[in-house]
Amino acid sequence: MASKTGYITVSSKGNRDVIDLTPQLRDIIRDNGVTAGIAVLFAPGSTACITTIEFEPGLKKDIDLFLERLIPYSGRYHHHETWHDDNGSSHLQVAMIGPSITVPVVDGEPALGTWQQVVLIDCDTRPRKRSIVVQMVY
Amino acid sequence: MASKTGYITVSSKGNRDVIDLTPQLRDIIRDNGVTAGIAVLFAPGSTACITTIEFEPGLKKDIDLFLERLIPYSGRYHHHETWHDDNGSSHLQVAMIGPSITVPVVDGEPALGTWQQVVLIDCDTRPRKRSIVVQMVY
Amino acid sequence: MASKTGYITVSSKGNRDVIDLTPQLRDIIRDNGVTAGIAVLFAPGSTACITTIEFEPGLKKDIDLFLERLIPYSGRYHHHETWHDDNGSSHLQVAMIGPSITVPVVDGEPALGTWQQVVLIDCDTRPRKRSIVVQMVY
Repeated sequence: MASKTGYITVSSKGNRDVIDLTPQLRDIIRDNGVTAGIAVLFAPGSTACITTIEFEPGLKKDIDLFLERLIPYSGRYHHHETWHDDNGSSHLQVAMIGPSITVPVVDGEPALGTWQQVVLIDCDTRPRKRSIVVQMVY
Repeated sequence: MASKTGYITVSSKGNRDVIDLTPQLRDIIRDNGVTAGIAVLFAPGSTACITTIEFEPGLKKDIDLFLERLIPYSGRYHHHETWHDDNGSSHLQVAMIGPSITVPVVDGEPALGTWQQVVLIDCDTRPRKRSIVVQMVY
Repeated sequence: MASKTGYITVSSKGNRDVIDLTPQLRDIIRDNGVTAGIAVLFAPGSTACITTIEFEPGLKKDIDLFLERLIPYSGRYHHHETWHDDNGSSHLQVAMIGPSITVPVVDGEPALGTWQQVVLIDCDTRPRKRSIVVQMVY
């Protein structure tokens, strides 16, 4: 077995922009000739999270509304006092959902359901460039 | 090292049915002779999640009540407009908790606590058959 | 490739004590000569979770306040009826956030952002000694 590192670079609008990483994940798996093993997707930084969801416009809105209801951007957070920052809620959203997911690779494909995509949710309060680490062990 | 794929098949009642996957996980690890490495459990589909919990009847009820309070089935979700579906809340519950967990294997056993089980929570709104991927790297 | 197991032992105060595991994670990676692969951190037991966050005092307070608002210690939980226990909320907090995280190792370092730390949140209702499993595959 071996391990190899790929990267998926995306430009997000922040504010819980949901971005489908699946096409680029499939490309990286195929380009590296990974047929069986795992792929770990990890978002460095503390204000973007990775999970899976059916990537369709309705759920993108539902995710946004759910997280805003649970951890509103406009709330008061002690994090703002530390750095005079405005993204305390972004940090909490990401700590809850998590910055990473591990997907089995079977027969050269990520073992996702038909209606399941790996997505980045950029919870920061401004547009960001993100470079997602894709660590393959195969 | 090598990687190998196993499957755990379960029938769920949906509606946040909590199913203990640990006995079958132990079987798969032992049957494949895995003594040291990792096991990734992954639920394909977007309406079932995997986490760990002490598997006892009280907590099964608490999980159900907590998720219903946070993301009620009867709420209004934009997902329903996309597909005339009724499981928008199922998708959000799973996006939050996550479809996967990675467990170290040490001395031929998953490195779980004594009162800790790996569980599937089927958040869909109807009974489902689920085939969980168990990807071992060892 | 190989797999090896390390342990990070910490004493927590419980009650959502947030403990930075990153310095010891770096030590374990370096001491084992891991240059490329993954490190799985896993908290055995059902009342401590692992995630990443910017480790600074404001966010530690925000995490505590958020989880208390969402799943208060003083709430009524069916788990308490099972064992005459008082930590039902601890279990729910951990089931939601998760007991584990997988971090890519690139060039001998965990692929974390500059302001991102791997942390344990001990959600139990009393001080605990915790031994976190660090499973390296490299």
